[in-house]
Amino acid sequence: MIQTEIGYTTPDTISVRGKNLATELLGHIDFVDMIIFVFYGRLPEPREKAMLNLLLVLTTDHGLTPSAVSARLTYLGAPEALQGAVAAGLLGAGSVFLGNAQNVAEMLHRGASSLDDASSDQEILLRARELVQDAKAKGVRIVGLGHNIHVDGDPRIPVLIAQSKAHGYFGKHWRLLLAMEHVINESRRKRLPINAGGGVGAIMAEMNLDPLLGRGVALIGRCAGLIAHVAEERDRPIGLELWDLILKQDPRNVLPE
Amino acid sequence: MIQTEIGYTTPDTISVRGKNLATELLGHIDFVDMIIFVFYGRLPEPREKAMLNLLLVLTTDHGLTPSAVSARLTYLGAPEALQGAVAAGLLGAGSVFLGNAQNVAEMLHRGASSLDDASSDQEILLRARELVQDAKAKGVRIVGLGHNIHVDGDPRIPVLIAQSKAHGYFGKHWRLLLAMEHVINESRRKRLPINAGGGVGAIMAEMNLDPLLGRGVALIGRCAGLIAHVAEERDRPIGLELWDLILKQDPRNVLPE
Amino acid sequence: MIQTEIGYTTPDTISVRGKNLATELLGHIDFVDMIIFVFYGRLPEPREKAMLNLLLVLTTDHGLTPSAVSARLTYLGAPEALQGAVAAGLLGAGSVFLGNAQNVAEMLHRGASSLDDASSDQEILLRARELVQDAKAKGVRIVGLGHNIHVDGDPRIPVLIAQSKAHGYFGKHWRLLLAMEHVINESRRKRLPINAGGGVGAIMAEMNLDPLLGRGVALIGRCAGLIAHVAEERDRPIGLELWDLILKQDPRNVLPE
Amino acid sequence: MIQTEIGYTTPDTISVRGKNLATELLGHIDFVDMIIFVFYGRLPEPREKAMLNLLLVLTTDHGLTPSAVSARLTYLGAPEALQGAVAAGLLGAGSVFLGNAQNVAEMLHRGASSLDDASSDQEILLRARELVQDAKAKGVRIVGLGHNIHVDGDPRIPVLIAQSKAHGYFGKHWRLLLAMEHVINESRRKRLPINAGGGVGAIMAEMNLDPLLGRGVALIGRCAGLIAHVAEERDRPIGLELWDLILKQDPRNVLPE
Repeated sequence: MIQTEIGYTTPDTISVRGKNLATELLGHIDFVDMIIFVFYGRLPEPREKAMLNLLLVLTTDHGLTPSAVSARLTYLGAPEALQGAVAAGLLGAGSVFLGNAQNVAEMLHRGASSLDDASSDQEILLRARELVQDAKAKGVRIVGLGHNIHVDGDPRIPVLIAQSKAHGYFGKHWRLLLAMEHVINESRRKRLPINAGGGVGAIMAEMNLDPLLGRGVALIGRCAGLIAHVAEERDRPIGLELWDLILKQDPRNVLPE
Repeated sequence: MIQTEIGYTTPDTISVRGKNLATELLGHIDFVDMIIFVFYGRLPEPREKAMLNLLLVLTTDHGLTPSAVSARLTYLGAPEALQGAVAAGLLGAGSVFLGNAQNVAEMLHRGASSLDDASSDQEILLRARELVQDAKAKGVRIVGLGHNIHVDGDPRIPVLIAQSKAHGYFGKHWRLLLAMEHVINESRRKRLPINAGGGVGAIMAEMNLDPLLGRGVALIGRCAGLIAHVAEERDRPIGLELWDLILKQDPRNVLPE
Repeated sequence: MIQTEIGYTTPDTISVRGKNLATELLGHIDFVDMIIFVFYGRLPEPREKAMLNLLLVLTTDHGLTPSAVSARLTYLGAPEALQGAVAAGLLGAGSVFLGNAQNVAEMLHRGASSLDDASSDQEILLRARELVQDAKAKGVRIVGLGHNIHVDGDPRIPVLIAQSKAHGYFGKHWRLLLAMEHVINESRRKRLPINAGGGVGAIMAEMNLDPLLGRGVALIGRCAGLIAHVAEERDRPIGLELWDLILKQDPRNVLPE
Repeated sequence: MIQTEIGYTTPDTISVRGKNLATELLGHIDFVDMIIFVFYGRLPEPREKAMLNLLLVLTTDHGLTPSAVSARLTYLGAPEALQGAVAAGLLGAGSVFLGNAQNVAEMLHRGASSLDDASSDQEILLRARELVQDAKAKGVRIVGLGHNIHVDGDPRIPVLIAQSKAHGYFGKHWRLLLAMEHVINESRRKRLPINAGGGVGAIMAEMNLDPLLGRGVALIGRCAGLIAHVAEERDRPIGLELWDLILKQDPRNVLPE
């Protein structure tokens, strides 16, 4: 049967997950409620909503990230199609960027399955040592640690931890990740701190978020950032200068004075 | 100079529009604040925020719209890439869908430039008659009216009007659009009511929203709807059945029993 | 060093892989030569070129496949942006569609590593039995076999075999795939024939094609098919009818007469 | 009726534009034939095919153009999805890039409608003067002239002219464009030569190419170039270095040593 539980339409009603869009949703719930409602058919708990807002603000973007650059260069050639520039920016949000958080969540789900939120610090530390040794023995890289710019610690991590604690999402997954960070750094000269993907993965694990929703939240947040970048590109374009800058790195390219 | 006012990064800070992401934004503002903040560098007024929520919930989507179908059919072939399915769904949000609202906003900005919010109903009606006659004389179609399903009136329009009134966004643009609807329907047997694009266009005009932000809000909202569709496609797939259904419309296609 | 070996530009020359585009390539080589030249920096052998043409024609598309439907539905909403409709259609060419051929190529590379082109039919059959038994024991599905429409044999396979033979690309990989098809069907009532993905995978393995070029060739071919679909959609649109057809499958949707 | 003339399928045949894909097309025609065949349902004339090859080779790309950079930056974040990187690169092929050639073709169709291929040089020049003066009077920019790198003449133009002459596509549209270039440069100190978009537009006008096919050919060609860029990015990545390079342009970004 070809149908969706997401919604249906008649001449005088539009139904979304069993509610009347016009009379029961519009003006009654806000967008973050709607993200959860259209996905699960229920409204978020207050603490869920607080965390979703946190993840959405986190992923909105900042500065000239690869996705912002792709969106701006796409707008340069196709200013008639905002949707194309946004799509180009989102297409880079794949396994490396979004997959990082998802892989951390999966690692923590598996790694913490024998633990519970009431496990002692000692038990958590023991498990962390096992996981780190196991990864070393297998030559597997542990995900969620290390950042090329924030080499001494990602400034977002303390606030992600504080917010997780404030909203009751600081359990065995967060504790295991912090313990793994501790174990790994015992034997290193150069610190390898938890990165934002690691923190988001811990939150996804604590919230037991559907992986598609976890990845999806990042796409929604990034969408907002890309729109701001495209608007700035329209008003103060840097695309052509970027192109020149890139060409000039190879002396074989000769640009006129 | 290649730089953006949207943000920059140092080893221990991430700055977005001059605020510290970690200490001043995360946990302090919600996502709808962030949409405005990353775009304009200021927080929204409460009434702006209420209207943005309204537009975001409105565009989240419902049922098997073309963009939901494209996203699902894309996921069928590339389940490894949520971002690709979402991008495919967003790429249809172009001039016909998003442009409709934008064209209405432009028509109302131009049409109402000689009016103000205090103009009398009589003045508004007079202007509406001029615009409708002018469009007829030029053979130009008036945008924002008519719907293939909601033939007797789009159920979203009353709530868009009520919310606009409640938040102080019911001025000359809304009044002109309603007057144009009235004038057009004086001489028609089959009613041509304001559609959702018309209502969104009136709101965009009342809010004096940057057209890129107006289009962008619809992309953000739709993003949430597409993620829900892809998750449902993963859990209760209809893509292959859809393909069969489409092929069966042409008797030259012969499918095995 | 930020540079590419693909090309560079000066005020009076454009260089592609070390050749002058204007004086050495344009009018001197055709597009299929160029596909190989820009990728590898050398021209194709005649037999390579014949096979590339075969793969390109094969993947151009036919009928209302999911990618054609996505492209048409995208064009419906964004007719200003051909590139968006084509991109939406290509985004479905992921792991299920393109990955099938690539997985077959990898299975054949691994499976045939102990064989050579001069191996006897008996040796090949023995290896095929091992691989099929091994897959059964592990509960792994063998890729490249079975088709939902061409249940008694994909009509493209005989011509792919004949062309592979004609051009010297019928070696151990093709022979192993055919032997595996034979072994699997010994014990089945309903035949499970080699599908197009299986045939393309065998050819990719015989040609030792770079996986990105193998996947890329399908994208280039499909691009041509999608453009034809979009042009037909412009001239004889079916998008709105498709939307209606889909909605009508769910009786909760009520469309006006 | 929901059907396409492009193709249909039965258990033992696949039909494309009325031909049997397996027995009449595969191995019988090459890809450039197929591009025309799937679009028009007929094979190209030899001269058409020569020109299509020319346009495809021309648009394959070279160097680090914006579309190549977008594709590489997309691959950086989503290496699992070649189709996404290619789509991101194609999405920039919009009105500025592809539209340039199309606008030239339209300008030449309109401008040359009162001329024919046998018009004298004097008549052509007169018409060119009218068009240039008319554009100046209206303050409209004439498209197809000027290039930021090839300031003294685009090296591709002579070969496009020579090939057009060789294949019988050098008629009133090319002559008018050359005459307009002459007229414009009479009164300028800094030369404004015909650019590649201008040349492609003249060829599109001479061939009377469907605009969607004209734009489509550029997408097919570019697809090949992007695949080569992605493969090079896999083998000799420059994406992260590019990101660093871009960040370093703004001194507010501080990267660790």
